[in-house]
Amino acid sequence: MTKLHEWIENTLLALNLTDSMEQKTGFTRLGFSREEKLAHEQFRNIASSLALKTQQDEVGNQWAIWEVDPDAPTIGLGSHLDTVIEGGGYDGVVGIVAALGAIRELKRKRIKPKKNIAILCFISEESARFGVSTIGSKTLIGKVDKNKWENMKDYEHVTIRQAMEQYGLNWETFHQAYCEDNRFESFIELHIEQGNHLYQNHIDIGIVYGISTPIRLKVTAYGQSNHTGTTQMYERKDALVAIAPLINVVQKEAAEINKQSEQAFVATVSTVNVLPNAMNVIPGKVELGIDIRSVDDKLKRQFVSLVETYCKRLEKENQIEIRIDEIVNEKAVLLDKDIQQKLTNICDELKISYCHMNSGAGHDVMNMAKRWPSGLIFIPSVNGISHHPDEYTPLRNIQIGVSVLAAYLEREVGGCTTS
Amino acid sequence: MTKLHEWIENTLLALNLTDSMEQKTGFTRLGFSREEKLAHEQFRNIASSLALKTQQDEVGNQWAIWEVDPDAPTIGLGSHLDTVIEGGGYDGVVGIVAALGAIRELKRKRIKPKKNIAILCFISEESARFGVSTIGSKTLIGKVDKNKWENMKDYEHVTIRQAMEQYGLNWETFHQAYCEDNRFESFIELHIEQGNHLYQNHIDIGIVYGISTPIRLKVTAYGQSNHTGTTQMYERKDALVAIAPLINVVQKEAAEINKQSEQAFVATVSTVNVLPNAMNVIPGKVELGIDIRSVDDKLKRQFVSLVETYCKRLEKENQIEIRIDEIVNEKAVLLDKDIQQKLTNICDELKISYCHMNSGAGHDVMNMAKRWPSGLIFIPSVNGISHHPDEYTPLRNIQIGVSVLAAYLEREVGGCTTS
Repeated sequence: MTKLHEWIENTLLALNLTDSMEQKTGFTRLGFSREEKLAHEQFRNIASSLALKTQQDEVGNQWAIWEVDPDAPTIGLGSHLDTVIEGGGYDGVVGIVAALGAIRELKRKRIKPKKNIAILCFISEESARFGVSTIGSKTLIGKVDKNKWENMKDYEHVTIRQAMEQYGLNWETFHQAYCEDNRFESFIELHIEQGNHLYQNHIDIGIVYGISTPIRLKVTAYGQSNHTGTTQMYERKDALVAIAPLINVVQKEAAEINKQSEQAFVATVSTVNVLPNAMNVIPGKVELGIDIRSVDDKLKRQFVSLVETYCKRLEKENQIEIRIDEIVNEKAVLLDKDIQQKLTNICDELKISYCHMNSGAGHDVMNMAKRWPSGLIFIPSVNGISHHPDEYTPLRNIQIGVSVLAAYLEREVGGCTTS
Repeated sequence: MTKLHEWIENTLLALNLTDSMEQKTGFTRLGFSREEKLAHEQFRNIASSLALKTQQDEVGNQWAIWEVDPDAPTIGLGSHLDTVIEGGGYDGVVGIVAALGAIRELKRKRIKPKKNIAILCFISEESARFGVSTIGSKTLIGKVDKNKWENMKDYEHVTIRQAMEQYGLNWETFHQAYCEDNRFESFIELHIEQGNHLYQNHIDIGIVYGISTPIRLKVTAYGQSNHTGTTQMYERKDALVAIAPLINVVQKEAAEINKQSEQAFVATVSTVNVLPNAMNVIPGKVELGIDIRSVDDKLKRQFVSLVETYCKRLEKENQIEIRIDEIVNEKAVLLDKDIQQKLTNICDELKISYCHMNSGAGHDVMNMAKRWPSGLIFIPSVNGISHHPDEYTPLRNIQIGVSVLAAYLEREVGGCTTS
């Protein structure tokens, strides 16, 4: 049998559809893309080689099941294989590698589980393509908004519906991926931290107690497009000039709130769309996307008010109209205390360094946690870099993650070694 | 024979491929698009109905020629039929309508010209699609940069070469549209002002003496993309936060220079491209497009220095790299004094109100002026609005334009009325 670290490396490469993790432009596997589909195929191959039963549900989530008894409860675990544009090869993928690796460890130790184990490879976790995140896990828990999703488009004007149909899924029936309460006993996800806390402090495992889900705003400024050469400076209603100061205000005020609050707070103007975005036309319309996060929901609301007030001021000063749409508003998610305690005990026993912490990013587990007791394990991201080609987690850290996840599973499924 | 104003209205509608000039989203006929091709076809039909000989040259410019003697000199006139995205139906089109209308007037008066007259319908005048303007007239004067053009793309990643080939043109030979010096004796263009000077001051005709061509900069800020939720405010290298203050500095400094200078000065941040432009990723790279215009080339250079100095400061303050590329640098173009005098005389004789003025926008005539004595006539734009669905010039003003252009032509071709 291949050594674990070697198997981890091969699996990581295979799921990333590559033979080297060093890619100048990183990895691009957008939700419902051909690339995501190829990664899911690799997942099926690897799961089959571990004698797991694989199946795709109606929304495109891939399942790999170790079924011991149809009437026994099921322990769920998993993550995702899609990426942002030019992202890293560890975000999501490492959670799938670790889930497969943990099962491989159980099999190596000839554990005979008393419960079923299901690895879930969730489809389209990132919001990078359509502005909607965790489509796969949302569908699984029944949080589907077909009316809204149907009209959401990627930057090439492909709708979610079109993308799903191109992927081979059925728009009319994909919601049937919904799972009943008895489908899982509990769920656990392992993920790279995507922040710098573990790496900077030389800690191997983060046991997460809360996820700071986002409020997302679309702020639209309506000016008047006109010719850049013929419209005098004093005659203009330039939407970009009017709204641009908001970019730096968001940064400054977020830094200030973060300093003054107990919980971490971040806010980012992450997208800008200028219309018509042509060299010789004054910007007539500008849309800014703002992403606001904290585990303290009150801080997020307070920040939205601040943006609203500042935009009213910009409206007056520039005599233009500004509209604010709240396109996402997710309440912070708290994870299961028992699972956190079990993970703490395991780290103590295995003498693995750990800490309790928050998650700044959303993950599929935040949906699962609304229905089933759920846990989230972090492993370090070197320099905290993520969603970038430089994203990196050493194999050693993935291996520690596998060992914690394997120990957790072993205890959960309550099995015995076969003779 | 249809009355002139009725003919003008019908021709304007036909060239705009519409039955109403009031269109909420304006007109979109990008360079080398199917729509531009259809408009050129309409031009050929109308020119044929005036018994003009039509032909398309190698780059796709449409010619309509009234040939009286192959050895006689040729008076050129014309404009373009392409538009920006959601632009107006007067920019360019009115110049073609007026050119055709002027010939129609000569024919109505049974003038028998002693020189040839050629109307040119230049292809792809606007830079809206590829960032390159006046491709048709540039090619005609031999200002072709195939190496540079070949890689320039529209927002759907189509290159100029692909667009030209889809249009039915040959990339290898399109430069053969080049014209020898003896092809024209002179050239004249009629265009809407696209500014507010004529309309505001109730003047019917602008006789242009200079064109304030642009310097265009691409300013690129290189930060570090990272996850918006997991990267603390103090750990960020946000390219958008770093470069955003430049937007308002460009506006403020341009307004200041304009106030203090004899010649009009304008500068605009007209395009923004954020990478990766995803809701959950901190902007890692931001490109701003800056358009700088004046008939005073020294002012433009002075403004470029100002941008350079300010960017150095932003680089230091934010510890990121900023790169400035000068993607366009066109010297101001001065038009032919004799033609200006002839137009002045005509306006005096016909008792039409006029003024001498500059052009803030570039036009095909700025290329023609480098090779042949050239003139530019402006007619009013209501409220100075252009490159926008609200762009409008009353039929009455177009008719005055036709009469001035017809009078000019009549004198230039030195014809006599046929018996």
